[in-house]
Amino acid sequence: MAGICWTQETLRVAGVCERGFTVERNGHIIPGVLWHPSQPAGPRPLVLMGHGGGAHKRNERMLMLGRMFSVDYGWCAAAIDGPVHGARGPVTDASDPAYRQMWQRPEIVQEMIDDWQATLDALSTLRDVDTTRVGYWGVSMGTMFGLPYVASDPRVRVAVLGKAGMSGSSVQRSGIDTHFKTYAPRVTTPVLFVMQWDDERFERDGQLDLFDRLGAKDKRLHAYPGQHADNGPEAFEVQTAFLKRYLERTEA
Amino acid sequence: MAGICWTQETLRVAGVCERGFTVERNGHIIPGVLWHPSQPAGPRPLVLMGHGGGAHKRNERMLMLGRMFSVDYGWCAAAIDGPVHGARGPVTDASDPAYRQMWQRPEIVQEMIDDWQATLDALSTLRDVDTTRVGYWGVSMGTMFGLPYVASDPRVRVAVLGKAGMSGSSVQRSGIDTHFKTYAPRVTTPVLFVMQWDDERFERDGQLDLFDRLGAKDKRLHAYPGQHADNGPEAFEVQTAFLKRYLERTEA
Repeated sequence: MAGICWTQETLRVAGVCERGFTVERNGHIIPGVLWHPSQPAGPRPLVLMGHGGGAHKRNERMLMLGRMFSVDYGWCAAAIDGPVHGARGPVTDASDPAYRQMWQRPEIVQEMIDDWQATLDALSTLRDVDTTRVGYWGVSMGTMFGLPYVASDPRVRVAVLGKAGMSGSSVQRSGIDTHFKTYAPRVTTPVLFVMQWDDERFERDGQLDLFDRLGAKDKRLHAYPGQHADNGPEAFEVQTAFLKRYLERTEA
Repeated sequence: MAGICWTQETLRVAGVCERGFTVERNGHIIPGVLWHPSQPAGPRPLVLMGHGGGAHKRNERMLMLGRMFSVDYGWCAAAIDGPVHGARGPVTDASDPAYRQMWQRPEIVQEMIDDWQATLDALSTLRDVDTTRVGYWGVSMGTMFGLPYVASDPRVRVAVLGKAGMSGSSVQRSGIDTHFKTYAPRVTTPVLFVMQWDDERFERDGQLDLFDRLGAKDKRLHAYPGQHADNGPEAFEVQTAFLKRYLERTEA
């Protein structure tokens, strides 16, 4: 089982600890961040968070969610850099040619699945983490990698996915539709799929098609007006309530 | 302004009062039910509830929602019988020929709009009702009548609509698509539109089309697997949280 290596001083902000870490897998290094409440309270749910294209493990959205999950809900949360993103550089914008080149590597999706699995292996060694209550949150590139991962790791019990689909410019340059065809039917964990009604990168029908393909019987689609980067006014609150419903309920 | 006439002893169940009433409009009688918390606490939000085809103001769904809104949220709630439904009989099932005949009357939608407006006029005279915080909840027939009503009465500040659309067998026998074309763009209040992904009465594309036509900038679509009568596991909880967000927030 992979070990975890802490890389930074713990940053304590308003009741939450934020710690950089790395996990090694087959000789390459996966850089991550873990958020958890300052006050120890025994094993708690963990949300794995996949960032968007051109972003990184500690971007504004990851910070907002990681801190909210820890402060408001008392959970752990973790993000890792995607391939060629963040500390695995050089991509800082999805228009970078290296972004398209990343998708041209046939094994890229499987590598990211393996990275997430190694990360969860490592995080599972922490006493703060309840390995029976693990969720995933990731949209856009966080779904392009995250949907195949969620489909592949039965430890993930609930997932927020979306802002992705079977057609559109982002599909043309990534070829992700092939992977979605393979993995979407294998997603059997409860899913909230979010989409933007006027998404300029993923076509409306293609997003509806991807929702339709999800193998989960327990799934729901939430759609809001606006483009790819927009969000409904209550979107994050509702997504978190959804995760809470499945991460905190008593298993039969 | 129309007056309210109480028709029944107040039924007190677990913290909620349930009272039958009638409102007269142009010589015809609109039968209704009002739910409100037993403990007086000043003016509070009011949710108007439109029942489905073949149902009535006091059916299981109306009772469940009316009591939940009152007990768990401290709101008032009211339901009225639709035309030829409940105490305005004879329809007890949407397969009754009288149901189809109802829709053949060209003025039926405007009459129900007028009925709802007269009902809200009457309920507005009650000191328990805060007329600045009025919501609407109604799906299926509750949207076929309710969407035109919500589009026509600016006193309604938030609405849960859905399980209806521009095509399907229920549209063929009602001709409601014509009304939806007229009224959907006029709905400007915040809307949560719910749909069933495998609805056998309203086609999927026609429901998405109706959501698309809604004039509200602030709208969201929630879709769950299953047929017309099914509901997502958290559907009512999420719908109520949506109403709460708009009925209890402080207006700027």
